[in-house]
Amino acid sequence: MPQNGFGLANLPYGVFSTPDRSPRVGVRYGDGVLDLAEAFGETYFATATLNELMAQGRQVWDRERARITRLLSERAPSLVPIEDVTMHLPIKVADYVDFYASEHHASNVGRIFRPDAEPLLPNWRHLPVGYHGRSSTIVVSGTDIVRPSGQTKGPQDDAPTYGPCRRLDVEVEVGYIVGVGAPMGGRVSGAEFADHVFGCVLLNDWSARDIQAWEYVPLGPHLGKSFATSISPWVVPLAALEPARTGPPARTVPLLPYLQEGEDWALRLELELELNGETVSRPPYDTMYFTGAQMLAHLTVNGAALSTGDLYGSGTVSGPEPDQRGSFLELSWGGTEPLTLADGSQRTFLQDGDTATIRGTFTGAGGELCSFGEVTGRILPAAG
Amino acid sequence: MPQNGFGLANLPYGVFSTPDRSPRVGVRYGDGVLDLAEAFGETYFATATLNELMAQGRQVWDRERARITRLLSERAPSLVPIEDVTMHLPIKVADYVDFYASEHHASNVGRIFRPDAEPLLPNWRHLPVGYHGRSSTIVVSGTDIVRPSGQTKGPQDDAPTYGPCRRLDVEVEVGYIVGVGAPMGGRVSGAEFADHVFGCVLLNDWSARDIQAWEYVPLGPHLGKSFATSISPWVVPLAALEPARTGPPARTVPLLPYLQEGEDWALRLELELELNGETVSRPPYDTMYFTGAQMLAHLTVNGAALSTGDLYGSGTVSGPEPDQRGSFLELSWGGTEPLTLADGSQRTFLQDGDTATIRGTFTGAGGELCSFGEVTGRILPAAG
Repeated sequence: MPQNGFGLANLPYGVFSTPDRSPRVGVRYGDGVLDLAEAFGETYFATATLNELMAQGRQVWDRERARITRLLSERAPSLVPIEDVTMHLPIKVADYVDFYASEHHASNVGRIFRPDAEPLLPNWRHLPVGYHGRSSTIVVSGTDIVRPSGQTKGPQDDAPTYGPCRRLDVEVEVGYIVGVGAPMGGRVSGAEFADHVFGCVLLNDWSARDIQAWEYVPLGPHLGKSFATSISPWVVPLAALEPARTGPPARTVPLLPYLQEGEDWALRLELELELNGETVSRPPYDTMYFTGAQMLAHLTVNGAALSTGDLYGSGTVSGPEPDQRGSFLELSWGGTEPLTLADGSQRTFLQDGDTATIRGTFTGAGGELCSFGEVTGRILPAAG
Repeated sequence: MPQNGFGLANLPYGVFSTPDRSPRVGVRYGDGVLDLAEAFGETYFATATLNELMAQGRQVWDRERARITRLLSERAPSLVPIEDVTMHLPIKVADYVDFYASEHHASNVGRIFRPDAEPLLPNWRHLPVGYHGRSSTIVVSGTDIVRPSGQTKGPQDDAPTYGPCRRLDVEVEVGYIVGVGAPMGGRVSGAEFADHVFGCVLLNDWSARDIQAWEYVPLGPHLGKSFATSISPWVVPLAALEPARTGPPARTVPLLPYLQEGEDWALRLELELELNGETVSRPPYDTMYFTGAQMLAHLTVNGAALSTGDLYGSGTVSGPEPDQRGSFLELSWGGTEPLTLADGSQRTFLQDGDTATIRGTFTGAGGELCSFGEVTGRILPAAG
């Protein structure tokens, strides 16, 4: 049994290619990839995204997971060595929504930007606040991130200026991928979560804090976010996450019935943020105030349609401790408290050449350590 | 020559079907539709969206427009009578962004919600404020709109309640459709507008004002908008709009170079909002502060990718006069000044059974009256 987080309890799906084979669907096992198109011949494995497989629905997901488990445990199928594969964006993204569901993150942001006011806004505990983002700039882990340019204006400036972002940040998040859509006009309850959501990824919502600060009132973030969002290449099926399920934190205000869960869909995931190989934060995902099931129920309660390939992010994951914060905005407290790195250098926000990496693990069936792999990206200088 | 706004100077594209023919691309001419798949046989006409045609680029757009013009003017090809066709959503929508580019609208909203403050926020004159919306709930004119439900909370309420929206509104807008995409990391200047944008439609950004008011701080509108957005079925090519081009209003603050236009892309369009057949407003589009070319330059200045099928809306179009306001929020001044309709009834926001229709016209080549047709929708009661 592989000991690297990719054993039988995990079996995440991804889209890979090799020099002689076009992109197709595979499953990660140990240090290799099982080519599902070759192993089983289904047409939904012989395509360059997971969308066709995801659209099949939960019965097919369960059947294929059982079949893959049998094949890997009873025979020793040949695997493509992981060092020989190129990983691709695993899904064709339909709509992308990003939430803001960590109480510690939202409170930190409130304290940094409005030090004299109540940190959480009045709506925050009543609904998972969220907004739509740009689908076409969602990229797979490993894609270089060009520092964005745009308008910024400091509080003392008379007018905005144009130039490269000076407060480039990460946001450590978990992403939920919708497999089975739902028509406009309906609602998808939290209890139907596992019938619609195929699996989870790690997500880095790269953020240009200075661009965002100038643009975001009153319609929310736009160019401060839309330049790039990275996701990990391996989609961990919801079935693998079953043993990681837990109850959400205690509620301090009653939730409206449509947000009350019949089942617990908080998740015990251990996340880790690395800057240039050095761990700078370990955000615990089980501290999130709202769960993925609640986000889904909220997203559709107004009759909005769901599509195969919809992606929604949890929002920055931050725990209660200073070394559990999932953004440099928080880790450097708005840029006022630089981090000192192992080499003695200091950092508030990301510099050109920096590589930021998010990793995630959980305890799967049988107590097996399971890994999400990583989502990583290196910062390139702004375009001339 | 047809006198109904669909003569040779216009020639908008759409996707239509008949009982015996699957959806395909056609051009509106007078009271009929020219079946382009049948007339010319190109594969990009024999599909259920305009995306393939749009992706061909400006040279093909120009060539096809010339060919269609010749066919209609030199021969008398048989047309499918308009009463025999069903119109479909003309594009497969990629990313959807909605702007907020009318100074009169933004000022009215500021006065209604913040009566004691400066109506325009500090960033407003420096950039076209905008946000991403939900692509999967963009529907074609004629689609019924189910009143959304959601969380609302009045200023005197202790806690939010769940129920049908009580302040359902329209937003009269113009939509821009991207034909030719651009890769991530690049920028599309305003001067490249006509190389990327295929054409324009009318757009109704249905809005649940009470849901929006509770949810929108700090990340912007979400469920208050994501339940439905309607567009007109006929896409007016940019080439038809050439004679309607004009300069934008005088600037009161200098714009950064990337937003300064080499060419004038403000448009003289006459818009009209009807409630149940009665005209309630006539918003003039040439009063918009930012143009479609400026919106495009802003959208991509941070390196965001463009895709074939991207749609961006102008934001509510309101002129300086009370009868030029493009939303019921403004027409009823936040619900405090009900409109009296021709039948003596009064209206603040939309009631179940109401039909809201937006029409638009412009003066095309040779002084010919050209029409956008309409975008219409009827309100159905909230789902039980």
